[in-house]
Amino acid sequence: MLTQIKEAPVATPIDRLLATTQADMAEVNALILSRANSHVEMVPELARYLIDSGGKRLRPMLTIAAAQLFGKGTGIAINFAAAVEFMHNATLLHDDVVDESDMRRGKPAARMVWGNKASILVGDFLLGQAFMMMVETRDIDSLGVLSAASAVMAEGEVFQLAKTGDLTTTPADYAEVIRAKTAVLFQAACEVGAMAGGADAAGRAALATYGLELGNGFQLVDDALDYGGQAGTLGKNTGDDLREGKMTLPVILALTDGSEAERATIAAALGDPDATQDQVTAVVAIMERHNTLARTLEQAHDHARAAQRALEALPASEMRTLLSDVVEFSVLRAY
Amino acid sequence: MLTQIKEAPVATPIDRLLATTQADMAEVNALILSRANSHVEMVPELARYLIDSGGKRLRPMLTIAAAQLFGKGTGIAINFAAAVEFMHNATLLHDDVVDESDMRRGKPAARMVWGNKASILVGDFLLGQAFMMMVETRDIDSLGVLSAASAVMAEGEVFQLAKTGDLTTTPADYAEVIRAKTAVLFQAACEVGAMAGGADAAGRAALATYGLELGNGFQLVDDALDYGGQAGTLGKNTGDDLREGKMTLPVILALTDGSEAERATIAAALGDPDATQDQVTAVVAIMERHNTLARTLEQAHDHARAAQRALEALPASEMRTLLSDVVEFSVLRAY
Repeated sequence: MLTQIKEAPVATPIDRLLATTQADMAEVNALILSRANSHVEMVPELARYLIDSGGKRLRPMLTIAAAQLFGKGTGIAINFAAAVEFMHNATLLHDDVVDESDMRRGKPAARMVWGNKASILVGDFLLGQAFMMMVETRDIDSLGVLSAASAVMAEGEVFQLAKTGDLTTTPADYAEVIRAKTAVLFQAACEVGAMAGGADAAGRAALATYGLELGNGFQLVDDALDYGGQAGTLGKNTGDDLREGKMTLPVILALTDGSEAERATIAAALGDPDATQDQVTAVVAIMERHNTLARTLEQAHDHARAAQRALEALPASEMRTLLSDVVEFSVLRAY
Repeated sequence: MLTQIKEAPVATPIDRLLATTQADMAEVNALILSRANSHVEMVPELARYLIDSGGKRLRPMLTIAAAQLFGKGTGIAINFAAAVEFMHNATLLHDDVVDESDMRRGKPAARMVWGNKASILVGDFLLGQAFMMMVETRDIDSLGVLSAASAVMAEGEVFQLAKTGDLTTTPADYAEVIRAKTAVLFQAACEVGAMAGGADAAGRAALATYGLELGNGFQLVDDALDYGGQAGTLGKNTGDDLREGKMTLPVILALTDGSEAERATIAAALGDPDATQDQVTAVVAIMERHNTLARTLEQAHDHARAAQRALEALPASEMRTLLSDVVEFSVLRAY
């Protein structure tokens, strides 16, 4: 069960995850660096710019942690972890082109430095390298999990694009988008980690569910944070999703429950890259009136609880506790 | 040895290849259609628009033909053939965005109908589906061949992009670009076909070389045709590569051998999307003065001969003859 943390602990669960996976992650990071290399200079320049830009590498850490949970040496999990991070980074490169994003992780997006064209092609390169690393493990079942994830992720991105600015988008549409574009990669990262760690069918299924639900919760929190989170604290990038016309749950619920006038206020700002800070503030006020940020976070909690429940099927261990704490921490970051 | 065909035969080698592979290609085409499907409507709409646009499906036909050459039932070759075609189409979608191309196979490019964003994402989807089809064969060695091809192709595209408009590009740079962006997929298509057909190591190597050299010859011919081919016949799209700043062999050789004034004429038009037909005509005249189209086609011939020589290591058969004729036909189309 989720409990509110009243006092900040000295080490966050993410810090503890970092510490526990440190030795294996050093191997993962070395592999990532070496596989981002190429005699074509633009490839490592652009790839490393993104890869070294301070992402916390949550997905590959989860792969390693899942392998450790089942006790078997992490061997091929190293390759899968690096492959998962490459898949994620390839997606980020393509997403920034598709979303016309200027910034990523507090720095100018790669496309602002090397251009859209290079971002598309280096994304393709990272995807190809990801598959090469998977193939080297010769583990065809894990390859099945990751290749399916790759196709589903792209499908989810197309679905999100098709729904951009579509006022009739339903909560079910949204649930499908976040599952496909975000949760499936978390699921695959945890599932192949468990497989590499020697999990049986039940263990594999538990970690797949854990990853899927963590990913769903993670994205819901992200989408609430884009409007300031529960506290509604407005920051520099508040409302980016609104300006891009992204149909996330806070806006879908506000459109459903809002008055005619409120709907008009939202519709006027939705998908307008030049929407003013005042317009964003007005939309967030509507969301607060209808409690849609809190309700979005409630759904995140539901997914987080489902992730934690999936772990309960497994024997108790320090790692199991840590993975459960990671979920809690990921959801609580929105408060 | 290549011989000039004096009278057009009733059926071209491509027609004969179509006839020989027809039954298997019906299965490949059905698989292609079914795997381009998705409940996200934009995916099959865009994918089929490209896939049904009259490409001759040379690459998957070569996979099937290579499998047939070694006599074993084509079973998993069907999956590899469809995967190769998906990889090719994913590349076309991304290339058209990168090159800002308006037309593809005589129709508006998909990006002109659905936009750049959808073209990027549906390309990613096709790539993911390609890997899923490969994984279903559970043939890890063929997966190694195709995943390596995927990474090398993207690397080649980045290299080509980095060299765009670069007057110092060498013939060796060019050779590397066409090997990576074009020839490696022909190589992989033929190699995995041979593997699926039950080829031994020598047979596999022969077909890999055949595909690689055919692909190199194919791209050299394409690049000569962009300037009108041997005959220098100017058409509607003559000089597209010039306007895009693509450093292909005809232009590289003309820059090397041209006078100061000729180099200036070329440099003025290179990479200028608004270069006039007169400018293109002037550049082609320089190419003819220095014989660079003929010399490009000579290199295509050399590769074609190397492809044919690779086949000579194998026992004589009708299919071997046909594959040899396909090479000849592909190169002669430039006259």
